[in-house]
Amino acid sequence: MDAVIKIGGSLAEDPEQLKALCTKLSEFAKKYTITVVPGGGRFADVVRDFDKRFTLSSGISHRMAILGMDQFGLLLSQIIPNSCATYLLTDAKQLSEIGVVPVFLPSRLMFREDPLENSWNVTSDSIAAYVASRLHVAKVFLVTDVDGIFTKDPKKHADAALIERLSAEELLKLNKRTSVDRYLPKLLLEVSIDCYVVNGNHPERIEAILAGQQATCTLIVARTE
Amino acid sequence: MDAVIKIGGSLAEDPEQLKALCTKLSEFAKKYTITVVPGGGRFADVVRDFDKRFTLSSGISHRMAILGMDQFGLLLSQIIPNSCATYLLTDAKQLSEIGVVPVFLPSRLMFREDPLENSWNVTSDSIAAYVASRLHVAKVFLVTDVDGIFTKDPKKHADAALIERLSAEELLKLNKRTSVDRYLPKLLLEVSIDCYVVNGNHPERIEAILAGQQATCTLIVARTE
Repeated sequence: MDAVIKIGGSLAEDPEQLKALCTKLSEFAKKYTITVVPGGGRFADVVRDFDKRFTLSSGISHRMAILGMDQFGLLLSQIIPNSCATYLLTDAKQLSEIGVVPVFLPSRLMFREDPLENSWNVTSDSIAAYVASRLHVAKVFLVTDVDGIFTKDPKKHADAALIERLSAEELLKLNKRTSVDRYLPKLLLEVSIDCYVVNGNHPERIEAILAGQQATCTLIVARTE
Repeated sequence: MDAVIKIGGSLAEDPEQLKALCTKLSEFAKKYTITVVPGGGRFADVVRDFDKRFTLSSGISHRMAILGMDQFGLLLSQIIPNSCATYLLTDAKQLSEIGVVPVFLPSRLMFREDPLENSWNVTSDSIAAYVASRLHVAKVFLVTDVDGIFTKDPKKHADAALIERLSAEELLKLNKRTSVDRYLPKLLLEVSIDCYVVNGNHPERIEAILAGQQATCTLIVARTE
């Protein structure tokens, strides 16, 4: 498979832009084999809130948040033309090979294998990278509502600069919350998968990267060969 | 089994009261065989909101809302002492027989069988009644944050009066949104199960009804024998 593409939940805050992106995804699937992994967005935010109020165990809140990804995945399966929601990696592989967009609902795989740390350091970013590793994909896209990883939060600081490329080791050493989760660089190194953090409001950037071209994004390099 | 007890999601807005209720539930399970079914609460409210913004199909929003019940069920399984979350009716039966409180996560049963209308007329109230029918239970409790069904919304009208008892046929004829979902009376008639709408901030009322005594609540009569 060519790529796993995670659609960040924050993109759901603008329905028209998200629908435009989803239409593009179904076009990409005619040329490339892709699997979509949903983010958590507001479905996971509700879990965060209850986690604070009830002091839940990390295992329980982790599972609740993953169900939030399933919820957003069902939503995506409706608005991505020619898509199909599935719990199975084998289905995702087969669907992608016939030009359909599989939307992978991660709950059953993650509950069964429970391969990652149960904490808020692991969000849909790391889960997408894990799914990518299980599908033997070399590229994972984290599609969000900003252009990539910045030196500072671009929504708060006008002088924030886009980091166009960094290694997973460098990201690990930053040791701070960026637009991706904290566990991600560790996992990318383990599974040797490159990661593109890209703005979903510019689907042409995803298309360019799929075609091996340059585009505005942050590339996190983790492949060793 | 003696009873299915649905815990309304609105009760999660007061963590201390909900924890007190949950402690009581585990005490009841020593004397009675019970299964807890979670409501949807804010987990389902997020789905309602996205349903409006994306005009989702009824099948998709129905499934997303049921995943919201799974989320609240996982939360309940942490705060009910001596409880266990399960997807299986057979597990629920066995756990209840050894004094454990099964928290039934409805997604897998409901996705597999899809027995009820897919619309917002069917919420966790009807799903709890369906689970009760599958467990051959004669009583279903809908535990909420008001004393039962009122003649008017008690949170808005000071002269609202509690309806202590009505038949499922009468509730069906009311043909309006009460504190229970619109599909419920139809289903109760089909499965011949009596339903008690009761205030979870007074767990002693649930205990009294389990013991066959009177308590403040609304009894919806549907059993024909």
